[in-house]
Amino acid sequence: MSDTLHEECGIFGIFNSHEAAELSYLGLYALQHRGQESSGIAVSNQTSVVMHKAMGLVNQVFKHQSSLDNLKGSSAIGHNRYSTTGSSDIANAQPILINCRMGQIAAAHNGNLTNTVQLRTEMENDGSIFSSTTDTEVIVHLIARSKRETVDAMILDALSRVKGAYSILFLTKDALYGARDPRGFRPLLLGQAGDVSFLSSETCAFDLVGARMVREIKPGEMVRIDKNGIESFAIPVYEHVERPSYCIFEYIYFSRPDSYVFGENVDKIRRKLGRRLAKEHPVQGADLVMGVPDSATTAALGFAQESKVRFDIGLIRNHYVGRTFIQPAQSGRDLGVRIKFNPVKGVLKGKKVVVVDDSIVRGTTMKKIVRLLRTAEPAELHLRISSPPIVSPCFYGIDMPTKKELIASEKKVEEIKQYLEVDSLGYLSIEGLLSVVSEPKQNFCAACFNGEYPVPTFGEKGHC
Amino acid sequence: MSDTLHEECGIFGIFNSHEAAELSYLGLYALQHRGQESSGIAVSNQTSVVMHKAMGLVNQVFKHQSSLDNLKGSSAIGHNRYSTTGSSDIANAQPILINCRMGQIAAAHNGNLTNTVQLRTEMENDGSIFSSTTDTEVIVHLIARSKRETVDAMILDALSRVKGAYSILFLTKDALYGARDPRGFRPLLLGQAGDVSFLSSETCAFDLVGARMVREIKPGEMVRIDKNGIESFAIPVYEHVERPSYCIFEYIYFSRPDSYVFGENVDKIRRKLGRRLAKEHPVQGADLVMGVPDSATTAALGFAQESKVRFDIGLIRNHYVGRTFIQPAQSGRDLGVRIKFNPVKGVLKGKKVVVVDDSIVRGTTMKKIVRLLRTAEPAELHLRISSPPIVSPCFYGIDMPTKKELIASEKKVEEIKQYLEVDSLGYLSIEGLLSVVSEPKQNFCAACFNGEYPVPTFGEKGHC
Amino acid sequence: MSDTLHEECGIFGIFNSHEAAELSYLGLYALQHRGQESSGIAVSNQTSVVMHKAMGLVNQVFKHQSSLDNLKGSSAIGHNRYSTTGSSDIANAQPILINCRMGQIAAAHNGNLTNTVQLRTEMENDGSIFSSTTDTEVIVHLIARSKRETVDAMILDALSRVKGAYSILFLTKDALYGARDPRGFRPLLLGQAGDVSFLSSETCAFDLVGARMVREIKPGEMVRIDKNGIESFAIPVYEHVERPSYCIFEYIYFSRPDSYVFGENVDKIRRKLGRRLAKEHPVQGADLVMGVPDSATTAALGFAQESKVRFDIGLIRNHYVGRTFIQPAQSGRDLGVRIKFNPVKGVLKGKKVVVVDDSIVRGTTMKKIVRLLRTAEPAELHLRISSPPIVSPCFYGIDMPTKKELIASEKKVEEIKQYLEVDSLGYLSIEGLLSVVSEPKQNFCAACFNGEYPVPTFGEKGHC
Amino acid sequence: MSDTLHEECGIFGIFNSHEAAELSYLGLYALQHRGQESSGIAVSNQTSVVMHKAMGLVNQVFKHQSSLDNLKGSSAIGHNRYSTTGSSDIANAQPILINCRMGQIAAAHNGNLTNTVQLRTEMENDGSIFSSTTDTEVIVHLIARSKRETVDAMILDALSRVKGAYSILFLTKDALYGARDPRGFRPLLLGQAGDVSFLSSETCAFDLVGARMVREIKPGEMVRIDKNGIESFAIPVYEHVERPSYCIFEYIYFSRPDSYVFGENVDKIRRKLGRRLAKEHPVQGADLVMGVPDSATTAALGFAQESKVRFDIGLIRNHYVGRTFIQPAQSGRDLGVRIKFNPVKGVLKGKKVVVVDDSIVRGTTMKKIVRLLRTAEPAELHLRISSPPIVSPCFYGIDMPTKKELIASEKKVEEIKQYLEVDSLGYLSIEGLLSVVSEPKQNFCAACFNGEYPVPTFGEKGHC
Repeated sequence: MSDTLHEECGIFGIFNSHEAAELSYLGLYALQHRGQESSGIAVSNQTSVVMHKAMGLVNQVFKHQSSLDNLKGSSAIGHNRYSTTGSSDIANAQPILINCRMGQIAAAHNGNLTNTVQLRTEMENDGSIFSSTTDTEVIVHLIARSKRETVDAMILDALSRVKGAYSILFLTKDALYGARDPRGFRPLLLGQAGDVSFLSSETCAFDLVGARMVREIKPGEMVRIDKNGIESFAIPVYEHVERPSYCIFEYIYFSRPDSYVFGENVDKIRRKLGRRLAKEHPVQGADLVMGVPDSATTAALGFAQESKVRFDIGLIRNHYVGRTFIQPAQSGRDLGVRIKFNPVKGVLKGKKVVVVDDSIVRGTTMKKIVRLLRTAEPAELHLRISSPPIVSPCFYGIDMPTKKELIASEKKVEEIKQYLEVDSLGYLSIEGLLSVVSEPKQNFCAACFNGEYPVPTFGEKGHC
Repeated sequence: MSDTLHEECGIFGIFNSHEAAELSYLGLYALQHRGQESSGIAVSNQTSVVMHKAMGLVNQVFKHQSSLDNLKGSSAIGHNRYSTTGSSDIANAQPILINCRMGQIAAAHNGNLTNTVQLRTEMENDGSIFSSTTDTEVIVHLIARSKRETVDAMILDALSRVKGAYSILFLTKDALYGARDPRGFRPLLLGQAGDVSFLSSETCAFDLVGARMVREIKPGEMVRIDKNGIESFAIPVYEHVERPSYCIFEYIYFSRPDSYVFGENVDKIRRKLGRRLAKEHPVQGADLVMGVPDSATTAALGFAQESKVRFDIGLIRNHYVGRTFIQPAQSGRDLGVRIKFNPVKGVLKGKKVVVVDDSIVRGTTMKKIVRLLRTAEPAELHLRISSPPIVSPCFYGIDMPTKKELIASEKKVEEIKQYLEVDSLGYLSIEGLLSVVSEPKQNFCAACFNGEYPVPTFGEKGHC
Repeated sequence: MSDTLHEECGIFGIFNSHEAAELSYLGLYALQHRGQESSGIAVSNQTSVVMHKAMGLVNQVFKHQSSLDNLKGSSAIGHNRYSTTGSSDIANAQPILINCRMGQIAAAHNGNLTNTVQLRTEMENDGSIFSSTTDTEVIVHLIARSKRETVDAMILDALSRVKGAYSILFLTKDALYGARDPRGFRPLLLGQAGDVSFLSSETCAFDLVGARMVREIKPGEMVRIDKNGIESFAIPVYEHVERPSYCIFEYIYFSRPDSYVFGENVDKIRRKLGRRLAKEHPVQGADLVMGVPDSATTAALGFAQESKVRFDIGLIRNHYVGRTFIQPAQSGRDLGVRIKFNPVKGVLKGKKVVVVDDSIVRGTTMKKIVRLLRTAEPAELHLRISSPPIVSPCFYGIDMPTKKELIASEKKVEEIKQYLEVDSLGYLSIEGLLSVVSEPKQNFCAACFNGEYPVPTFGEKGHC
Repeated sequence: MSDTLHEECGIFGIFNSHEAAELSYLGLYALQHRGQESSGIAVSNQTSVVMHKAMGLVNQVFKHQSSLDNLKGSSAIGHNRYSTTGSSDIANAQPILINCRMGQIAAAHNGNLTNTVQLRTEMENDGSIFSSTTDTEVIVHLIARSKRETVDAMILDALSRVKGAYSILFLTKDALYGARDPRGFRPLLLGQAGDVSFLSSETCAFDLVGARMVREIKPGEMVRIDKNGIESFAIPVYEHVERPSYCIFEYIYFSRPDSYVFGENVDKIRRKLGRRLAKEHPVQGADLVMGVPDSATTAALGFAQESKVRFDIGLIRNHYVGRTFIQPAQSGRDLGVRIKFNPVKGVLKGKKVVVVDDSIVRGTTMKKIVRLLRTAEPAELHLRISSPPIVSPCFYGIDMPTKKELIASEKKVEEIKQYLEVDSLGYLSIEGLLSVVSEPKQNFCAACFNGEYPVPTFGEKGHC
């Protein structure tokens, strides 16, 4: 996914640890790839919930030990928010922490609801006020407005009213909750280390805190973790849900390759995508296969192995690029790619090169990468994409541009090839994509590739 | 008021200026003495309202020109929040900016409501969520929940339901509102400079932005300033209010001496307090009169003049003390006073000294000041307080300790004298205090001195 | 000294305390008025000397406890550097810490040498390199280049070669040194608290750290403080020095009124200046006397007392103005005065007012203050200056503008009166000025008033 | 080089560009891998030289556009300093900028001199002072002390007196100089883009600024670039130097793989090292080859290709680790590796794995990586090192621990294998290492592997 940044969010929860804030910090750190705009942790000490959040990376938000020391308590939830190209606002940072008739509640959300506008309008008309533009605030309002008598029931009541994609954590002074929408678009997993329970978007966070994965939270399931243990609830469904709609893009790009989500190791799936891509779009007589680092490396390895062409490193990525990088005035748009990547001339010059990337969104960045690679004078550049053409925007949690901005919704593959100025271009087929998963292929959402939206949308693009 | 910090808030509004944010910044700067914990400005550009706020002094919150440049628009409200000894939290910083059915609304409040708990409980029970512990949020909720049809009516409806003290500003995309509770506890004034209208807690802010005072907003009045001019509304009252209850403490301590509030120049009143104090508690054969800087200087001048004893500077105040001052470990509590004041030995040694301060709250700081003054070896120290003993906490906007912590509610004057180790102690009488104002004395609230609360309280201590 | 900022430096030293860095921090804090540009502390732990310095106020440079904790050791020197209008550069911050053949040496200097250019050129021609533009570095070079055998002798040798004004501290791993030029232009005092020894520019720093003043370091004296106690040395003089040349401006403006320098309490002298001024330039029928805060307050008190006219506060100073204050674009130059001062209308309106200030440099700021005071509509404004006209720049440590920029070197008093638009203007006479000191008047330098430079100058304006 | 951080410095120079500071910023950014402790740029505007430097990464030091805007001029030099485990001190940040008899001179240095102590002692005895502990300051002192008449001659004179390794840049108001020691230990290259000339430690910086490499500065050569063009000088040698002693470690670890140094593309050499390693120490029946990311990836690719075993990604590196990362208290030493790497279980489990790393210094980090890899339950772990055992510390610019701390100087390979708990361990032979370079093998310094120091050392470990 070199082409455009379109990340979502990462969430992490912990119960019953005297290091709740510190382990949340580590968990969020492991989930940093899911959101770089803001980070925050809310902690309960059984009496009250306190929070620290700010704009920036996890290690910027918690750069002084004191910011963790102030978060005393034994349960916590944390959140990394994604980075949009548009405005970034502390008001949208999470967790959000509010008071309502059930007391204090903090929430951290990954996903995107499809009926936010309707719910929000209803509640505004009924006198509610909104401090942010997040879906999370909508859910918390629904909880506060529920007429049910217990916290469990209030949360379930609220969740029964929202539609779309959510993996969400709640923290009250007594309990940690984790819930996943009935279609399970986004991952959410349960972990354990001794008496301590964990919830996380991905298992890589468990690895860092020394926990083992217990299981995935099931689609349509809510768990409550408190001093009595873990209890599971079914979220009352607004309609019959036959099967899950796991986001196939978690495998293609979002999740870290060392994570396990939707019943599989991500890196295994990603390698199979590369292998399948090699079968569908082989390149005869190629000298080497390279991936656009770092996200496409695993798929490139699979392609190389299947096609028995050697894998090589043709682009060096500079990992020091940060949010604060000044683009000096004279440097036009193309510095944007140069500042991140440098082609390895010795590897590419005169060679017939297969370049694997995981996806193309607008195509503008890919075009710049191709131009950059051409400066190393390869004989031929054959571009292979380990996912199908993206033709429809996501409404379930990925921040994509509008349909019109998606190059593959406007152009045919041949036209894209010409636009990108590559010698050939091959996308993985939808069949190919869905052939590599171990779950039944109907259990995945591939709406961005085939336009078949499992939950009706009204063009709403909310956010976590 | 050397004894304990117990400040409130400062508010400033502007309409129809191409420098709305910049002049708000100056206005807040002039009102810095009313709150040092956080500062913020919300600006409307006729289409939407944007805001910047953060913890710190005005010139820390807006230390980069860019933070003002980002606030483009022609109307604005700003707020300085007071500093409590307890927790400070960005969630309580103001203005607050929310969305509701009437669109965006920002609010900035000075005062304290007495029925917050009841209103908040009611609304929480009805499903509202609260993101802060401010009274301001309660008022905004009431606006959002009002069933009235126009913004004007919704705000008036909301204000008709709150009790206690408030001077409050609202900003919508089209209009600036200013309202003052029916008893007018806190000041709020209207200013003008050409076509530009201003609202401010004190006139000293008008001086800095080059505006002239037009009049005070009347108790129970709301004004709306928009492109059609200024319109005045009466806030529907919840009960018959016979007369105002201006906070007498604004004269004693809060307001800047160069401000005009409640129909009088503050410094004039403060000087009269000193004169009256000299009449009530003269010190025979005194060598000099000094004030505890800077707040008691004006009263000390009045005392000196009346008693025909020379005024002198006996304590030097170090004005570089900031919020970030580290108290090195070895320095016990008493450094707290030393770091701020240094006695002038040459002035005090061997002299019979009258020390004037404006008030005593807990007495602990005053005791330290007395000890500090003793190191300069005065012959005698006679303490005179330009206000009566504080016996009851304020519930209308001043952050005072509990009744038990107020030294004068627990100890008689003679006991306080012994505790403070001064040679004599004299407080101004309530009669004396109220004799200096030009308005009828019944028009002032002196509850902290006489326990007569003009609006029933339930021990609620909200905050702006 | 409202007219122009032209401050110098503050220095503080300590020997034999387990809180050397923390007490230096307090000492520098008390000396903050002598320099606001940069601050730093060097500490010796008997093995090596370490340092922390940065741009900003003392409490900004040491805003984290850790910055003090890292300075472990039992002896220390600290420095506050003055603020010039021109470029400020960390390279000029002090102390400076270097290695030379005698090991590590740190130096902190207050004053201005008159033969810097010559010495620097000599040493550069002989191969020396300079990292800053400070006189301090010149002195350290001289130490390093001395052929003497002991540290004591090397320092004395170096000091024997420099001309002009210096009060300077040196710290080696074993000892603390303090030296004062043969004319003693700048103050330097010795303090004690138990076994701990102190050196400071002013006694107000002793007060804060709980030390008592022992004596002034004598003109031409160097003291070495080490584990064997205090030893005194005479600095070998480059010429016969008949008498000291104490800087009279320390009394007029620089030193804090609660300090004791040159054998007198500053506030006492300053009050006498006001009394004398009242005798020389009385104002018949004046209603009140005010000072330009805060520096002229003491002199104004003296003027009021002598003339039996009441003292009052006619200008409120906003003490929140900091270095970071943004001057919004629209606000022209005059905001500069408004932002700092606000006239008290109730005090001034219709009154015949005597305004006392301590000095006038360029006259531009004073003119703005007069205009500001006029907005309060006084009947008459009579300006009285508690020092003579400044006609010649200082070359001994005060950062003054060139002779041409000094209003009194270009204009007669009557012309200045017209320029400032005051009803009358009176400067203290030189005789009057020197009549108030207790030391013989020949012992003071008044070169800025009479052009009689006690040490030849070549137009060199170095700096500490 | 996962084992221990032991980086050196990066330098960059530019002449005749109206974007001198901005392009230096980009150049330093590309050289960030050579030093992360501090960064700085000095710029000449033909009249004077100004500088900005601070602790931190390039994009932290220049995080505001204003810091670049203040550096106006058409020629510049920049420096990134390496990060040592010990104290980091702004006094050692570079460039250094001083005044001496030839005017202003700035210097930026990469390398390590071997006669610093002697030179420094000599100069200290002759009266010089030192503000830092850098070799750079020694060189600048030598320039300032030279008796020659021209700047060119003074620099050459100074360089003729220093021994050891240096690639160094000087900037005067008129000219940019670049010099390389007679043995050419460290790289230094000349680049060009139109009329603009560049000097850089590595060619990857030329790629980012859009320049092409012209040639390497030759060992023993100094170039002066000014308005008259480029002139080359021979540095007068202190002894006959038969051949260069290029640092072989630049190929093994330091230089970026996309750079060209010592006549070769780094990635090509690194791949050959992997191939040769596979021949010397094959692993029969291996399932996969992985490198310790990122530095060993290229060598691992070579190993995989030669041994016809598939390359795979067995460790994910988290690139968000920054200097500010807090290690929460509870996390012991091993979190240090976990925070940076996570093993990919799906790749490693049950597999016979070849792990390639570029070098082993102390062995402690490698032991942690091995333990981390074991948690993924590989069947066997075979460690291959693409360089010989490090037995002697470097004295020519690499910050290595003492001989005793080098695991290979204390233990035999078999013992190291046991310590690391790997199934087998193979180091590349020295012959193998030197067989892959294109220059004659005698032209490389391999002192850290064979103890044959081309320039006598006295245990001096200076630094750039």
